Amino acid sequence: MADTQKGRAIAILAGSGELPRLLAEAIRRAGGEPVIFPIAGEADVGDFPGFTAHQYRWGEIGGLFRLIRGAGCRQAVLIGGVSRRPDFRTIRPDLGGLVLLPRILRLLRRGDDGLLSEVAQMFAEKGVELVGPLAVAPELALPEGLVAGRQPSAALREDLRRAAEAARAIGRLDIGQAAAAVDGRVVALEGAEGTDGLLERVARLRQAGRIAKSGGVLVKCMKPTQDPRLDLPGIGPNTAAAAARAGLDGVAGEAGRALLAGREETVLAFGREGLFLIGLPPPADEAGFRGNG
Amino acid sequence: MADTQKGRAIAILAGSGELPRLLAEAIRRAGGEPVIFPIAGEADVGDFPGFTAHQYRWGEIGGLFRLIRGAGCRQAVLIGGVSRRPDFRTIRPDLGGLVLLPRILRLLRRGDDGLLSEVAQMFAEKGVELVGPLAVAPELALPEGLVAGRQPSAALREDLRRAAEAARAIGRLDIGQAAAAVDGRVVALEGAEGTDGLLERVARLRQAGRIAKSGGVLVKCMKPTQDPRLDLPGIGPNTAAAAARAGLDGVAGEAGRALLAGREETVLAFGREGLFLIGLPPPADEAGFRGNG
Repeated sequence: MADTQKGRAIAILAGSGELPRLLAEAIRRAGGEPVIFPIAGEADVGDFPGFTAHQYRWGEIGGLFRLIRGAGCRQAVLIGGVSRRPDFRTIRPDLGGLVLLPRILRLLRRGDDGLLSEVAQMFAEKGVELVGPLAVAPELALPEGLVAGRQPSAALREDLRRAAEAARAIGRLDIGQAAAAVDGRVVALEGAEGTDGLLERVARLRQAGRIAKSGGVLVKCMKPTQDPRLDLPGIGPNTAAAAARAGLDGVAGEAGRALLAGREETVLAFGREGLFLIGLPPPADEAGFRGNG
Repeated sequence: MADTQKGRAIAILAGSGELPRLLAEAIRRAGGEPVIFPIAGEADVGDFPGFTAHQYRWGEIGGLFRLIRGAGCRQAVLIGGVSRRPDFRTIRPDLGGLVLLPRILRLLRRGDDGLLSEVAQMFAEKGVELVGPLAVAPELALPEGLVAGRQPSAALREDLRRAAEAARAIGRLDIGQAAAAVDGRVVALEGAEGTDGLLERVARLRQAGRIAKSGGVLVKCMKPTQDPRLDLPGIGPNTAAAAARAGLDGVAGEAGRALLAGREETVLAFGREGLFLIGLPPPADEAGFRGNG
């Protein structure tokens, strides 16, 4: 479905964080040519030196698809954080936007995966194929096995098993992607607060003496219900730093289904913090899935 | 298993909060005679005016069972919070304590339900039957149906359904008892932080604009794995106040499996906050269970 021909132009609709720039660099290394549309309020043209970039504002939807097609892109990737709600005072819907805005607002209000996949449908209607970041930049996929740090002990492997089981259970209910386990017990589950909020909570539980002073793991799993083109679990240097502040021993994601925010940077950061990073095999019942739709 | 004969003496091993006193009053109203053992650091003899009470310190386990039997109690209830770890400097284990302390410390460190039921085993070995609070004070059970406030809308009933599904899913994994849903989406799940921590998180998510400004529900369910004699989900005036601060519309528990921290006080508090309180029917696959082992 998503092939990366030499020199092919690929649109990146860019939210906040490092991922959009890292994706652009990885696409270029893979021989593609990214054209970036930073979302106003989340990212700016200036965040992408050396790349073609056009600032995008909420509401300019019709114009966006014209620009994407005009830049020769038949594929687009959505990546980065869209944590802030759009500033409604800045929205000046164009004609395409007036039609699509109600759908987008509903999507932002709910955030559930059924609605997220409506985005893919909108792109398809406009002649642009929405693809997953790993389809155009496979080097950003978390590989299977130990990626950084030392092999976890048997006790930590049991923490990994319990946290993965919990993360998948809440993923099946479309609630969150992450769980933390300490001393054989799952102590924190991700809801709307996100992984950073979860890790801050683990740090506070330690300070309050509700859990052991240190040890344990974080596991992030893709929700089985979610569209792998959107919102893949991300792991990067910030994850390593936040997991270290939370007193954890390591982090795991699913191989081929988690996005590294720069492979080299991520491995270095985990090493610096003395944490392990592991790519777990995907669950047996979904083994055929490669996460790069 | 647990019959409440007139005048029967029942030991209450009392942690923090209002529940131990409310239970003592309810037992007396039901014709029993409570003898209270406040746990040092959590409750004091002075918290129980008008009742026979003996201060209990961690480690005095052998003495505790002697006192319980000496007071004519063949049954005991554990109730109230034991959130703080025992102050190890104050522990002076007696002979019984020296034998049992390792088991109790393991229990406190882990807190999982397999270990909690070890407590029941310890009591049985010492000739004291551990019973659930609802077995000796059935008036404290949450009844089925609308208990306070107005009937929830169809949208809120859907929130109730989703939150109950999530609370039961994490309960099956022995993680937590509570979930909050807002606008058709589960936004927060209980881990080691407890229900108060979960509700504070919901309040912060609102302030940060991550979820709607108000609306939604909290549902607390007993973990299917847990011993119903220990740590039943509690709902009381504090729940009403914390749910109101979290901007919720109402709270639900499972009928016959949640403990009201004073029925009258709880109904009044929910009414005052403008929140509903509902007792859900227990799940179909466990319909025979009455929660008062």
